[in-house]
Amino acid sequence: MSDPQASLESFRHFREKMNAAIQAAGNLTINRFFALDARAYDAGALDAKTKELMGLAASMVLRCDDCITYHLIRAREEGVTDEEMFEAFSVALVVGGSIVIPHLRRAVATLEGLPAA
Amino acid sequence: MSDPQASLESFRHFREKMNAAIQAAGNLTINRFFALDARAYDAGALDAKTKELMGLAASMVLRCDDCITYHLIRAREEGVTDEEMFEAFSVALVVGGSIVIPHLRRAVATLEGLPAA
Amino acid sequence: MSDPQASLESFRHFREKMNAAIQAAGNLTINRFFALDARAYDAGALDAKTKELMGLAASMVLRCDDCITYHLIRAREEGVTDEEMFEAFSVALVVGGSIVIPHLRRAVATLEGLPAA
Amino acid sequence: MSDPQASLESFRHFREKMNAAIQAAGNLTINRFFALDARAYDAGALDAKTKELMGLAASMVLRCDDCITYHLIRAREEGVTDEEMFEAFSVALVVGGSIVIPHLRRAVATLEGLPAA
Amino acid sequence: MSDPQASLESFRHFREKMNAAIQAAGNLTINRFFALDARAYDAGALDAKTKELMGLAASMVLRCDDCITYHLIRAREEGVTDEEMFEAFSVALVVGGSIVIPHLRRAVATLEGLPAA
Amino acid sequence: MSDPQASLESFRHFREKMNAAIQAAGNLTINRFFALDARAYDAGALDAKTKELMGLAASMVLRCDDCITYHLIRAREEGVTDEEMFEAFSVALVVGGSIVIPHLRRAVATLEGLPAA
Repeated sequence: MSDPQASLESFRHFREKMNAAIQAAGNLTINRFFALDARAYDAGALDAKTKELMGLAASMVLRCDDCITYHLIRAREEGVTDEEMFEAFSVALVVGGSIVIPHLRRAVATLEGLPAA
Repeated sequence: MSDPQASLESFRHFREKMNAAIQAAGNLTINRFFALDARAYDAGALDAKTKELMGLAASMVLRCDDCITYHLIRAREEGVTDEEMFEAFSVALVVGGSIVIPHLRRAVATLEGLPAA
Repeated sequence: MSDPQASLESFRHFREKMNAAIQAAGNLTINRFFALDARAYDAGALDAKTKELMGLAASMVLRCDDCITYHLIRAREEGVTDEEMFEAFSVALVVGGSIVIPHLRRAVATLEGLPAA
Repeated sequence: MSDPQASLESFRHFREKMNAAIQAAGNLTINRFFALDARAYDAGALDAKTKELMGLAASMVLRCDDCITYHLIRAREEGVTDEEMFEAFSVALVVGGSIVIPHLRRAVATLEGLPAA
Repeated sequence: MSDPQASLESFRHFREKMNAAIQAAGNLTINRFFALDARAYDAGALDAKTKELMGLAASMVLRCDDCITYHLIRAREEGVTDEEMFEAFSVALVVGGSIVIPHLRRAVATLEGLPAA
Repeated sequence: MSDPQASLESFRHFREKMNAAIQAAGNLTINRFFALDARAYDAGALDAKTKELMGLAASMVLRCDDCITYHLIRAREEGVTDEEMFEAFSVALVVGGSIVIPHLRRAVATLEGLPAA
């Protein structure tokens, strides 16, 4: 946790390496699920920013650190500001309770490693 | 499940009656939490519609039918259309998997009892 | 939910009937687990009241209505007052967040059907 | 819960009706997920019986009654006997703990409404 | 995991640093939630020891390692002995099942780094 | 994550060390639960391979990395091939959704450290 940018780089590296290994295994159901997951956040009736914020809130209440990191990266790419991020955090905290707090701490540490909106 | 509007009326009645009983019990922590919960979805850096959609997605992946019903009602009040609702459902379904489906079925039944956007 | 005492009677009846059916099936692992579960709340280094309150808090954050009902009955038998119950509820609510609320409402309705402490 | 066969019929009816309503809504991600879900249990490297037992165990530890009912029906169609069902239940009970018990009771009640293996 | 006391010191340092960063962000809902969380375990109708044991059991069944560490520290400060800790662990294990075991292992390692009761 | 075999060795070492510490504490309920857990996967009406696959699927949807590692080791010992493993993963992924993916990545990394079937 000492270097947010190194953590982000390590996260990205492991994620890409293992996604490639999973895809190479050739299980059709898994590969189709990955394709579905990639498209689920595309803009449609709802814009990409709103969908990333939903993905972020869902990831926080389910307490999935890697999912949170991914949606923080994507939400920032969609222009979500720090103030908006903390409002999204606040909704997840109220819905999910104090067990969300350890993940919130790590999310804020991750946010420090991302470029400003 | 046979009459969505009767189900909604029953939900609202039980919710209000028990909220009153809880508040009357006078536990300060609980009453403050309820106040916090009520304010968490107020417009701020994010608008109320976005927050309700986040609350809806979080409720679906956590598989809380009453929470889903509440956020469906509120999201509809904020003007969320059927198409937008189904996109929110699709994000929750991909994040939470097939165990979300029974709650999705009940959500769609509830939606049939709500006024159009 | 209209008659808490009838709900409690129905809960007890179904619970006893199905526990008997499960035991009769003769699966050794299941039957041993049931025996372990029954003894886990016996007084030891911690008294039965404390253990029932722990079981109640755990059941609320895991959002298991039948488990909550069972521990409400047992906690009341151990002399837990309404004020103590609501303090236990408040801990569960802060730990587990707003998704605990629907279960809290049903817990308070169940409490109304139990004899006073 | 008084009539397992009527409960099963009601489950099937609501499931089919709402699945049709969901499909008719035309959300591509949701419809593709449903197709993926339907194929996930097809025989492949593992036979259908093994996959249904995995789906059953996963549904029990996640405490999804409708999912459990569905996999009980399918597992029985694949020839799973009562004794095998209870062994599957025992694995889920040990993995998921006593909060699985209320779902186990309802699973056993459902099993009583299914034809013998 | 090789040095329980170093792990505890690292946990405390990260916790305090990030709590300060969260508070400095100035989100009112989050800051109020933190205040509520801090007060939820104060002695009231139930004493602090009982509340910490409830918080510990809830944290174990929800499988939140940081929450477990926090409540182990606080429970020990309230005089909870090793024997009482293991009884609390046993309730959480029976309620939450074998998936609690990895967290139990880490809890016991943490306990070795705490002063005796 | 850089060396799967070193990770496996570290996992085994910590697991055995802490299991011994837990058993030495002498809590009867905990020790009986561990005995029950050890026997739950013994061949009976269902064979050991099927039970390990159920344990693996349950561990993945509950997102317990240590549990997944344990069942991967045991499933491999029972002769489960890579292709069968990925089919088990696919069932868990569809049931549990995209939040299973980070655990799937780590599972595939672990699998690389195990001997071939």
